Amino acid sequence: MINPNVSVDCVVFGFDGQRLNALLIEQEDLGQDHRFALPGDHLQDEESLDEAASRVLKELTGLTGLYLRQCGAFGDPNRVSNTNDLPWLRTHRSNPEARVITIAYYALVKMEDFNPSASGFAKRVFWADAYDVPALAFDHNDIFNRALGTLRKALKDMQVGFKLLPEKFTLTQMQSVHEVILRTTFDKRNFRKKVINDNWVIPLEEKQTGVYHKPARLYRWSNKA
Amino acid sequence: MINPNVSVDCVVFGFDGQRLNALLIEQEDLGQDHRFALPGDHLQDEESLDEAASRVLKELTGLTGLYLRQCGAFGDPNRVSNTNDLPWLRTHRSNPEARVITIAYYALVKMEDFNPSASGFAKRVFWADAYDVPALAFDHNDIFNRALGTLRKALKDMQVGFKLLPEKFTLTQMQSVHEVILRTTFDKRNFRKKVINDNWVIPLEEKQTGVYHKPARLYRWSNKA
Repeated sequence: MINPNVSVDCVVFGFDGQRLNALLIEQEDLGQDHRFALPGDHLQDEESLDEAASRVLKELTGLTGLYLRQCGAFGDPNRVSNTNDLPWLRTHRSNPEARVITIAYYALVKMEDFNPSASGFAKRVFWADAYDVPALAFDHNDIFNRALGTLRKALKDMQVGFKLLPEKFTLTQMQSVHEVILRTTFDKRNFRKKVINDNWVIPLEEKQTGVYHKPARLYRWSNKA
Repeated sequence: MINPNVSVDCVVFGFDGQRLNALLIEQEDLGQDHRFALPGDHLQDEESLDEAASRVLKELTGLTGLYLRQCGAFGDPNRVSNTNDLPWLRTHRSNPEARVITIAYYALVKMEDFNPSASGFAKRVFWADAYDVPALAFDHNDIFNRALGTLRKALKDMQVGFKLLPEKFTLTQMQSVHEVILRTTFDKRNFRKKVINDNWVIPLEEKQTGVYHKPARLYRWSNKA
């Protein structure tokens, strides 16, 4: 049985080495203005919140095995009563007037490792530029912004950057992830000094291969976080 | 109308200058083994989650105006179906079998500023030693532990310590809050150097009064966090 009052919504961030992206689905076209949305759905009776988040992502986007973490609960009394969202709710929900409290999750993926494909009520699934997210259904733009704030904080605490990097990476790649997500630039020498002196990374006796420039040393994450 | 599926639960941490405490309520005695609990109740139709947390604290403990922040959603399918909790649920809930997902909040208070008093279904309200919390109803020990972890993280990030201190404080008081909550000891010189050099505190041209030892300089929080 589906819980009429509780849902989960997922913000999946993908990094392709250069840009930060967010995974969106497109709803069925019922004439609504904004039919892009975060992948999400109602909680079912027998599953925990974490299990619901994994199931929903699998059902709508095909993605499995993601690092998923809660980033807030959203319970504005009017969060699903905007007229723009009613046609879709009336078509897809047995109780379209019910108040829905949603638990937000965020996930981090290297885009090369995952290939989303739409199913369930998602008509299409696609990566949108995280800095140019369109108007979304419900309060999904608020949820996206909360997830981005959570990601930035975790990144500053050096807890998640490695999830967006290959297992062995150069310090240039590491700096790039931090610069793109925090929307800033770091001084190269200071950045290197900090991540090495604070033991966030461990230098390997290996260098890049297959590059035209002088190959850079590779590092791995220290698991200190 | 009360939402049958969604509640809020609050962990109120109180600091008295020496010890960290947590605010608990005592349920009506219906023969259950564990009748201490966190203050919490179901969401009502017209209120947001934040409003629900404030209302519930006011109704059960009399406390108002607290700094309240979410620290997680708890949705284990069996979180309110332990036999120990059934007598209370049957007496106090119109739908005692309903699955309840709860949104956890935590709050920080200087104990001298607040004087809780029990009302509503709370038979008693009291401060328990945060490091000696008894067995609680439902999954409230899990919720308490999550809140304590969230508090510790925020404290390490220098975001919340000042909420547990007077407006003007000595560095000894500041060190004490950090030591008690993080359960560690800091080297006095290093702690002082760090909070002053990193600009977390601003020295005042004032000293303690009414103390028998040499009065120490007072500081205020820098609001940099």
